[in-house]
Amino acid sequence: MVGFDADDTLWRSEDYFHAAQDEFERIVGGYVDLADARVRERLYAVEKGNIAFFGYGVKGMALSMVEAAVQITGERIAARDLHRIVGIAKEMLQHPVELLPGIRDAVEAIACEHEIVLITKGDLFHQEAKVRDCGMAHLFRRIEIVSEKDDATYVRLFDEFGVVPRQFTMIGNSLRSDIAPVLRLGGWGIHMPYHLTWAHEAEADIPAGSERLQVVSSPAELPAALCRIVESAIG
Amino acid sequence: MVGFDADDTLWRSEDYFHAAQDEFERIVGGYVDLADARVRERLYAVEKGNIAFFGYGVKGMALSMVEAAVQITGERIAARDLHRIVGIAKEMLQHPVELLPGIRDAVEAIACEHEIVLITKGDLFHQEAKVRDCGMAHLFRRIEIVSEKDDATYVRLFDEFGVVPRQFTMIGNSLRSDIAPVLRLGGWGIHMPYHLTWAHEAEADIPAGSERLQVVSSPAELPAALCRIVESAIG
Repeated sequence: MVGFDADDTLWRSEDYFHAAQDEFERIVGGYVDLADARVRERLYAVEKGNIAFFGYGVKGMALSMVEAAVQITGERIAARDLHRIVGIAKEMLQHPVELLPGIRDAVEAIACEHEIVLITKGDLFHQEAKVRDCGMAHLFRRIEIVSEKDDATYVRLFDEFGVVPRQFTMIGNSLRSDIAPVLRLGGWGIHMPYHLTWAHEAEADIPAGSERLQVVSSPAELPAALCRIVESAIG
Repeated sequence: MVGFDADDTLWRSEDYFHAAQDEFERIVGGYVDLADARVRERLYAVEKGNIAFFGYGVKGMALSMVEAAVQITGERIAARDLHRIVGIAKEMLQHPVELLPGIRDAVEAIACEHEIVLITKGDLFHQEAKVRDCGMAHLFRRIEIVSEKDDATYVRLFDEFGVVPRQFTMIGNSLRSDIAPVLRLGGWGIHMPYHLTWAHEAEADIPAGSERLQVVSSPAELPAALCRIVESAIG
């Protein structure tokens, strides 16, 4: 069985978060000197502190942005500008899904040979909307939207899927969420880095040179990488 | 099989949303005359309009409150006061679960005789936290957190559970989300009204006098109501 991550593996996501951060900087830039105020760092500190309350996703991002904007501007920010932050969230939530180049062919090729499942985290409501819009939902045997992709989550999913870790390969862009837990549990991973990575997702310990990890740079390389994994697993 | 709703069926929820609305009124009451401004109606109008973007749950509520506060005050509201709205959300998200009186006994009694599942909607992250904290998660064969409880959702769940509607009874406080769709599909319902109902959940068409619907006023009455349903189903 093969699991696919969704955001930044099947479709663009982090680009929109980066664009939202740029817009956030423009908004608070009306109140503080961006060169001095370490706006990104302070926003990330608020977001990271709020994960325990809000989890992942656009709505939690927007609430953290409101909080960070109030802090960074010393409560000087106008209501109109805080309202723009809600507008950023709404735009992101209704943005059409943009599949990554070549991913549809790769998913179809892999679905031909293996059972595939989708495992993604974030806002349930937003992820369901993207799954509906992506035009590939029918290819996946199961679509799992989870609040955190840690060892416990994968253990529960393997149980529900009826697979053991050594029969499971996870494909994704996040070392922290897609690769590290699956390797720790004895499964296989294909890391397909995205050109943008949220700081939080980059924090991960991967055992160096793990023979159960493949790294590819584009969707077109996925079927061959999976083939190498199957040969290793059998061999 | 018996399905339980969670918010306002197993544990208190709408009380906190009402308390949040009271706090919202206090905040915008510093800017407008509450007697004239129809604050509740305007907040509900914004919330309802935003369901398509945000879905259900505390985070969407808070973003809608920010938007409504800016509108209602004609953009005069201070950053500090908008920040208080984010604080309301954080408090709600970390509030301990308060089970309704008698519900644990009722769930245990029913779990003794039937397979039970939990079907709830809202923020994935928040609902998972409440399920963890409630101390009853182990009684449920499946815990399903969904973005909307409509006919399509129940059809999908019945399929995943491997049951047909006439073998399924849903217990909940919302006519719109818990009772009407299950009755339409040919299942059974036990309506246990809560003393507070969000306007959105009260909107539902129930066929008058449906013989597949029981109404109870407290958890203690649930086992007997279910027993009557089983007798009707066999009868």
